[in-house]
Amino acid sequence: MSLFVHRHEKADGRELLLYGRAPHQGIAGPELEAAPAGRSHLRWHPLRQEWVAYAGARQARTFLPQAAECPLCVSQAGRIGEIPFSDFEIAVFENRFPAFSADAEMPDAIRGLTLAQAGGRCEVIVYSPDHRSSLAGLSDERLELLIEVWGARVKVLRDMGFVAVLPFENRGEEIGVTLHHPHGQIYAFSFLPAQLARAAKAQAEAPLIAQLIETLDPALILRAGQAALSFVPPFAMYPYEVWLAPRRRVASPDELTDTERSDLAQALGDAMRRLDALFDAPMPYILTVQTAPQGFEDTFHMTIEIHPFRRDTNKLKYLAGVEQGAGVFLVDVLPEEAARRLRAASA
Amino acid sequence: MSLFVHRHEKADGRELLLYGRAPHQGIAGPELEAAPAGRSHLRWHPLRQEWVAYAGARQARTFLPQAAECPLCVSQAGRIGEIPFSDFEIAVFENRFPAFSADAEMPDAIRGLTLAQAGGRCEVIVYSPDHRSSLAGLSDERLELLIEVWGARVKVLRDMGFVAVLPFENRGEEIGVTLHHPHGQIYAFSFLPAQLARAAKAQAEAPLIAQLIETLDPALILRAGQAALSFVPPFAMYPYEVWLAPRRRVASPDELTDTERSDLAQALGDAMRRLDALFDAPMPYILTVQTAPQGFEDTFHMTIEIHPFRRDTNKLKYLAGVEQGAGVFLVDVLPEEAARRLRAASA
Repeated sequence: MSLFVHRHEKADGRELLLYGRAPHQGIAGPELEAAPAGRSHLRWHPLRQEWVAYAGARQARTFLPQAAECPLCVSQAGRIGEIPFSDFEIAVFENRFPAFSADAEMPDAIRGLTLAQAGGRCEVIVYSPDHRSSLAGLSDERLELLIEVWGARVKVLRDMGFVAVLPFENRGEEIGVTLHHPHGQIYAFSFLPAQLARAAKAQAEAPLIAQLIETLDPALILRAGQAALSFVPPFAMYPYEVWLAPRRRVASPDELTDTERSDLAQALGDAMRRLDALFDAPMPYILTVQTAPQGFEDTFHMTIEIHPFRRDTNKLKYLAGVEQGAGVFLVDVLPEEAARRLRAASA
Repeated sequence: MSLFVHRHEKADGRELLLYGRAPHQGIAGPELEAAPAGRSHLRWHPLRQEWVAYAGARQARTFLPQAAECPLCVSQAGRIGEIPFSDFEIAVFENRFPAFSADAEMPDAIRGLTLAQAGGRCEVIVYSPDHRSSLAGLSDERLELLIEVWGARVKVLRDMGFVAVLPFENRGEEIGVTLHHPHGQIYAFSFLPAQLARAAKAQAEAPLIAQLIETLDPALILRAGQAALSFVPPFAMYPYEVWLAPRRRVASPDELTDTERSDLAQALGDAMRRLDALFDAPMPYILTVQTAPQGFEDTFHMTIEIHPFRRDTNKLKYLAGVEQGAGVFLVDVLPEEAARRLRAASA
């Protein structure tokens, strides 16, 4: 299917892209302008052996607006949002409060510390003009488009020279989400985060995802498509964690065939509906799309990973002392039991 | 000062220890008995390169009891708790719902997975019989005793053969704490968690904590004692993060001199009062005591690390897509600004 993109330069210079199955008319109205950027930068944590990012301007970001003030809804008379169009399918634009930016400056030296510029790019991806929708509520066609847009953005951002690209979504007030309009984010990094490096190196040594799919207990599978599947990983870090992967090794979503994308879209909607049905309440979660960092394109196998935060009707999963202090995740629900309950939940 | 310990074997065989400056009379009444242990075990996460611990029995653990039912208060007529004594200073006992245990069995093989027994020991440490107290409310003398008990437990658990010992405290309903009575936990592991290994190896290559203290911007220091100090680390992962360390390299709290322990106790109470004063509300936090794993006793410099979860009056710090998906922490408040506000908060 064809993917159309309409490029718009926002009043403050930020890029906005409208992706869709049909060409967009592109008649723009008024729009929100960005606040001056804060001085983001990176500091090396010598004990964690990881970069920590400081982004002071983010403290002021929009916090739980009423629906009538949603900056991700199309702009209307009396309410100016980020998207100055009357309609769209999927919109992508540069974040008003970016933690990383392409023109990030080198910070002033601090004695004893290793510093770096917070190089990267932060984008917002809006899944639908419908404020009350969610991944579980989108049609399979829209989910396919979303996966295709993830792929298109990963390709563009990699071509811009970024080392790693992470599409993700945080959902739910329970985990601090400040905007309810269905949307995700895409972070591109000009450095390789240590956790992504570990995963990519491990995959370079052995085809871990292919092996995982091959040896997977069928009872862990939620939806087995011809070209892609969803399952509870047998080493899940969160109760009811769900992964999706194409069966073939594909480094990032731009390399998916139509069949693989279609299978992933169906598995994604299916997984989201099961997660929402599990406790009869919208499931708060973090979804990440793991794509090949630079240099690992020939060995990395992309996955979509959903980390849900509700472990029981009125209980959330929190990271506590053992997770934070030692990096050891404690999980209350065995993956086999989680899969049994998710398979029983109606999709 | 002298440290007395009274050992009690609970009705179900678990060990309970009463530590104090005075000998304990040790007349025991009725007490809670442990539920049968679940089958905890470890599974290797091949992409994170870390063990994940599964502890099914924990799902049933006590959840937000009313104060009158607190299992950490001394047992009284009509309410049976964990501590069958009428009074105590500091009590330590084996957790009723241990995620790790010394007699953990090797789990049944699962195709394609690397498994291990969840070897270790989980202890609860109760700071005071006063249900409504907190670290901020304890006297300096009680805090000194607490640090000494941490040291005593680390030594005992290391002598039992455990590879790493982590005293910690989770505080606040905001981060899922199920019991409000002031208490912490101590986890001993029969394996070396990857995050602890990274930190210990980094310190074996360079005296990072000594260098940090030596080059520390004085504006980051909250309380500078002769033998120990508290400060905001310049690479803090959480807003208002506070670390405490003895100036001399000490591998674990059992090696502290009286002066170092006294300085740390005063800095600990001071830090806790500042954190509670910052937003005029009890600060939810994770506190961990980082001690030398086996084999790193000659290079490790112990720290006490406090990771607060409130970043503004009504805003919590959550781990979201970038933290969970890439391991990159985003921090809204610069360490220098956090230190300025903490120094201004009344202790």
